[in-house]
Amino acid sequence: MLLHLSTWQEVEAYLQQSQGIILPIGSTEQHGPTGLIGTDAICAEAISKGVGEATHALVAPTINVGMALHHTAFPGTISLRPSTIIQVIRDYVTCLAKAGFRKFYFINGHGGNIATLKAAFSETYVYLEELQNGHASLVQCQVANWFMCREVLKLAHELYGDQEGSHATPSEVALTQYIYPEAIKVVPLSEEVGKGHKIYGATDFRRRYPDGRMGSNPALATPEHGQQFYEAAVKELSNSYLEFVNS
Amino acid sequence: MLLHLSTWQEVEAYLQQSQGIILPIGSTEQHGPTGLIGTDAICAEAISKGVGEATHALVAPTINVGMALHHTAFPGTISLRPSTIIQVIRDYVTCLAKAGFRKFYFINGHGGNIATLKAAFSETYVYLEELQNGHASLVQCQVANWFMCREVLKLAHELYGDQEGSHATPSEVALTQYIYPEAIKVVPLSEEVGKGHKIYGATDFRRRYPDGRMGSNPALATPEHGQQFYEAAVKELSNSYLEFVNS
Amino acid sequence: MLLHLSTWQEVEAYLQQSQGIILPIGSTEQHGPTGLIGTDAICAEAISKGVGEATHALVAPTINVGMALHHTAFPGTISLRPSTIIQVIRDYVTCLAKAGFRKFYFINGHGGNIATLKAAFSETYVYLEELQNGHASLVQCQVANWFMCREVLKLAHELYGDQEGSHATPSEVALTQYIYPEAIKVVPLSEEVGKGHKIYGATDFRRRYPDGRMGSNPALATPEHGQQFYEAAVKELSNSYLEFVNS
Amino acid sequence: MLLHLSTWQEVEAYLQQSQGIILPIGSTEQHGPTGLIGTDAICAEAISKGVGEATHALVAPTINVGMALHHTAFPGTISLRPSTIIQVIRDYVTCLAKAGFRKFYFINGHGGNIATLKAAFSETYVYLEELQNGHASLVQCQVANWFMCREVLKLAHELYGDQEGSHATPSEVALTQYIYPEAIKVVPLSEEVGKGHKIYGATDFRRRYPDGRMGSNPALATPEHGQQFYEAAVKELSNSYLEFVNS
Amino acid sequence: MLLHLSTWQEVEAYLQQSQGIILPIGSTEQHGPTGLIGTDAICAEAISKGVGEATHALVAPTINVGMALHHTAFPGTISLRPSTIIQVIRDYVTCLAKAGFRKFYFINGHGGNIATLKAAFSETYVYLEELQNGHASLVQCQVANWFMCREVLKLAHELYGDQEGSHATPSEVALTQYIYPEAIKVVPLSEEVGKGHKIYGATDFRRRYPDGRMGSNPALATPEHGQQFYEAAVKELSNSYLEFVNS
Amino acid sequence: MLLHLSTWQEVEAYLQQSQGIILPIGSTEQHGPTGLIGTDAICAEAISKGVGEATHALVAPTINVGMALHHTAFPGTISLRPSTIIQVIRDYVTCLAKAGFRKFYFINGHGGNIATLKAAFSETYVYLEELQNGHASLVQCQVANWFMCREVLKLAHELYGDQEGSHATPSEVALTQYIYPEAIKVVPLSEEVGKGHKIYGATDFRRRYPDGRMGSNPALATPEHGQQFYEAAVKELSNSYLEFVNS
Repeated sequence: MLLHLSTWQEVEAYLQQSQGIILPIGSTEQHGPTGLIGTDAICAEAISKGVGEATHALVAPTINVGMALHHTAFPGTISLRPSTIIQVIRDYVTCLAKAGFRKFYFINGHGGNIATLKAAFSETYVYLEELQNGHASLVQCQVANWFMCREVLKLAHELYGDQEGSHATPSEVALTQYIYPEAIKVVPLSEEVGKGHKIYGATDFRRRYPDGRMGSNPALATPEHGQQFYEAAVKELSNSYLEFVNS
Repeated sequence: MLLHLSTWQEVEAYLQQSQGIILPIGSTEQHGPTGLIGTDAICAEAISKGVGEATHALVAPTINVGMALHHTAFPGTISLRPSTIIQVIRDYVTCLAKAGFRKFYFINGHGGNIATLKAAFSETYVYLEELQNGHASLVQCQVANWFMCREVLKLAHELYGDQEGSHATPSEVALTQYIYPEAIKVVPLSEEVGKGHKIYGATDFRRRYPDGRMGSNPALATPEHGQQFYEAAVKELSNSYLEFVNS
Repeated sequence: MLLHLSTWQEVEAYLQQSQGIILPIGSTEQHGPTGLIGTDAICAEAISKGVGEATHALVAPTINVGMALHHTAFPGTISLRPSTIIQVIRDYVTCLAKAGFRKFYFINGHGGNIATLKAAFSETYVYLEELQNGHASLVQCQVANWFMCREVLKLAHELYGDQEGSHATPSEVALTQYIYPEAIKVVPLSEEVGKGHKIYGATDFRRRYPDGRMGSNPALATPEHGQQFYEAAVKELSNSYLEFVNS
Repeated sequence: MLLHLSTWQEVEAYLQQSQGIILPIGSTEQHGPTGLIGTDAICAEAISKGVGEATHALVAPTINVGMALHHTAFPGTISLRPSTIIQVIRDYVTCLAKAGFRKFYFINGHGGNIATLKAAFSETYVYLEELQNGHASLVQCQVANWFMCREVLKLAHELYGDQEGSHATPSEVALTQYIYPEAIKVVPLSEEVGKGHKIYGATDFRRRYPDGRMGSNPALATPEHGQQFYEAAVKELSNSYLEFVNS
Repeated sequence: MLLHLSTWQEVEAYLQQSQGIILPIGSTEQHGPTGLIGTDAICAEAISKGVGEATHALVAPTINVGMALHHTAFPGTISLRPSTIIQVIRDYVTCLAKAGFRKFYFINGHGGNIATLKAAFSETYVYLEELQNGHASLVQCQVANWFMCREVLKLAHELYGDQEGSHATPSEVALTQYIYPEAIKVVPLSEEVGKGHKIYGATDFRRRYPDGRMGSNPALATPEHGQQFYEAAVKELSNSYLEFVNS
Repeated sequence: MLLHLSTWQEVEAYLQQSQGIILPIGSTEQHGPTGLIGTDAICAEAISKGVGEATHALVAPTINVGMALHHTAFPGTISLRPSTIIQVIRDYVTCLAKAGFRKFYFINGHGGNIATLKAAFSETYVYLEELQNGHASLVQCQVANWFMCREVLKLAHELYGDQEGSHATPSEVALTQYIYPEAIKVVPLSEEVGKGHKIYGATDFRRRYPDGRMGSNPALATPEHGQQFYEAAVKELSNSYLEFVNS
């Protein structure tokens, strides 16, 4: 059930049965010469819809732009600052908590969002508790990273080994190929690829990772792999969501 | 050309030819008993894609949540605060301006966003000018409201007269029916409908507009009307975008 | 009744009879070669006092500086940022609401304030509602632009036609001449005047409007016209205030 | 020379001769049963105009609302928060510094503003220095409290001794009587008056100072005294301003 | 009793007997060629511990970094901005007030902190009052400057006369020598020393006070003097704390 | 070399040889019935000093209060909000970067700080890059958690196995016992201990972890263990610091 395709009265009815909601969050950032700028949002959205269908959960609209400041030396990247995201998450949760939602399950497509999301959850809890709303202490937020699902990691290791890398990975590229086969990019990739450098500011990042990839070989990706990743993630996160919402 | 389906190198190439970008912005808010909560985002996104195709412009991912605080007494509504939106817009424009974009064309689906967007633009200009980036004084933002296109207003008047109202209108509902025919809602509407009250806070709003509609009769909407609105808006905004980007 | 010339006990007594208050808001910005920098504040203040007298309403001190960022390339302009104004308005309304005021009627002298004021009102409502003050949902803010009064527009059209323009207009200059006849400026104006350009940042604004006027010919202004504008605005806004406060 | 009664070209000419500006700052707060709510703003404004005339300095519009949070349990008080004032001062100084002003002389009518003003100056300096504007290190702000002028203190001591107190004092009431003789209030004052308590929050303040006075007997004030205070303050601050602006 | 060496259950027991807490606040800033960068924090911490022992009061961990923006042109200085400190103090007081503390006694080692602390207290009171916590109006904050104790001033005058100066003073240097005799610095000092200049931004400050001292001769300091200052301050502030906490 | 025991001229000399600095960051939060509230700050500070000695690095004063909002239902806990910490870190790094520091090595004693520190680093990088300081892209921040050192984890596993738990652990308690043997607490611990629950808000946390421990048995701690942890951490982090600063 998609929030955007529902009416407020349908949401009112839904709340009689469940106080859980799935919030896809991605990023708008370079993903190397062949990865889509929307990769992280596309993956999070597709998997969220899959989990929503499997669990009859409500799915919020996708947060398309996340914390990608270190990618901003590449054109096309858009990033919020952490302090902005903290306010955004607080606003989302506050509105939905007012309506009766209690369990916020963020399906996340971007590693760079994790730290800021956790900071935002802490800020949101204290915000709600201080307002002394009766329900404040019942609000719970969780971040679920599809790319860290046990089966996903296992599959990526089997298919790509070392060439999975850590950004613009074949696994995420495969998933976008499965979802948007019409947008598969074929561009020659240099054999050398930046690898193993710590992440600091944007200028530094581009210096160390000149084509945007981090140790990955996305040329290995296929839409068929993408489907496998999709199914593994949906299955695992569906169980995880149900466990969360029923705890 | 959709930013989310492009690579950073494609964006780099695009910037050689154009410094313009289209940014769809909607809202996630109640639209009466039959209107979709995502109405404003859905309409802005569809029309943006249409304008993008017609003008070969780059289209950013949709800003799904806007300024809908006055709707938050209805479940399912999510709103950012104006102060949050100001930061969000500043972050978007700053990132894209750094990459070389100069003309930001926001295609907007929600009247409640207009004031805050204008405030955000002002805040963004001074932010960029103070940093003394060479390009700061070239950055220009514009908001284009599809529902205020001359042809759209004319058509709505012809089709619905007084029953167009000002929220959960048949014209926007028709447009969503055209885009998502599978999500057409049929629910009996009360004959009486709130009308003509000024907008203050959320509690007050729900008191005056008990089912969420503002003077509208969305039962008049059809997908065929929706197509007409779509075409009128795409045509008019395409011209407007080209004029903006070439000025 | 002027707040600044009252005691707190007089305010306490006033609140027994009315929960309304008038807040003049202007701007401190260039108004072309002959317009006073204080034009918008002067006009808002004078008309507010007139409305206060006509309706026995309390009048707050004038907010002299508003949202005039686009004028800051001209010396003498002072502007708050939208994010600052949002905090200022929230602070004003919160203090006065705590004392029992419920109806906030901002008489505004500057078009550039409107969007930010609306954003500020929304931010203030949610701020008060979240604190769960009993009275939060009764607080109502309204912005009344004297220069958009029906009679004012009509009179400006009759007197100046096209030469009214949209900034440093003869109507507002006339009004300041009526209020401060000792500060009438006589300076030759160039025949050419910037006109019809959209407003972006401050540098851009000055480039397009080199002497600060926007399509106006303030040389047409006379103090006698000013008096007519004053009387028309006071009359119309007095009715509007009473309607608001009694609704 | 009043900024509000000048044109931008007159300001441009002024800047050729001086980079100094006087900014009156007051407060909108209870001043006991006979003191005007606008006392601090009225005094600061009148003295600023006097100093401006004596020194040919430009005088900005009055900041009517300051830091009076501890008075907000009395109706009619309006206060900004310190964090808001910091932004307001930063905005004022930034705009004026951009135009070429370097010496900011705040003539202050309210003791409660001093700490926040100092904090705001520090925040403003670092803000300007970080932007690396060439002129940043030349910007200087100073707060001058008329009620702490040597001659003012001496006169108050001679006229009122212990009954001067520290809020709603006869000296400031006298000054408003001189400026607005038509607004002299005559109300019996209780013989007992709160005195010597430290200042914490608003509720606590009203508990300790039930009629708003702090150890003062404003019944001693006369308009003639007011004139003496006015003249002493204008003389002393004129010298102080010239010293500042010429240093 | 040091908070950092206590358990939460010991704090719980303490709160049965007292709702007071001592919070040392210093600064991390240059103190001339022989003064320690930690001088203000070291002094505040040592004296706080002494007062805590004498009065059986709980002592919080030291706030090591304060408002020292004007010293930031000297390497080693770290400063928070006033707006940051306001948030820090609000967070501290809010957490401790939630646990039951009511009396917050800040023992301060740096003149530059005073204004910002006062602003922060005001901001904190209104924050707590608006949340309508029952205890909000009982929260009281006070700043106690050890260097302004009557006996300390007297002693400094006797020992150093004019050479005490106002920054990097022999009295504070003596106190650090008493606490850290192993860190006594011996460096020749120029005979000339900056003196009497007002404080503006950091660049200006270093221009006027080239070696960081303000009119002081810290070569006069001895550890024995330091002990005298320590004892005088602990005695006076112990009385002051008890008076505060029992009022 | 401790920043607090140095002069600014010593720091100036240090910068000729190194641009690295160690910043200890802890927390002020409950650590169960026998753990010190200052545990995380005490450990971070002691290890930082050890690393500073071993590597001749400068050590900043300890950040005593971190992100411990989830512990605030236990008395004695003090926490900053994530948004406050972001500002604090930005202020620290900005000041020190201005003086020439480039490598910021945060030795951290509290798991709850990690996410917020990462967010703060990102916010700081973009802040510095936008100001276009020449050195901005050279600034690098890193967080090093002593409790996650390989040898520390191994030792904790050997000594305590499952009873190490994840908060108020015997390893951190042991370390504080080594540093402050005079503050060893002996209190009977319940056999049952909360374990394995996710962390949400403060009220929820105390409900699930009633005595503050998370699956740990701190009764196993001894000062001798503490010394072993200390030495292991100092050794490993010294290497890590040198690698960082020389990279």
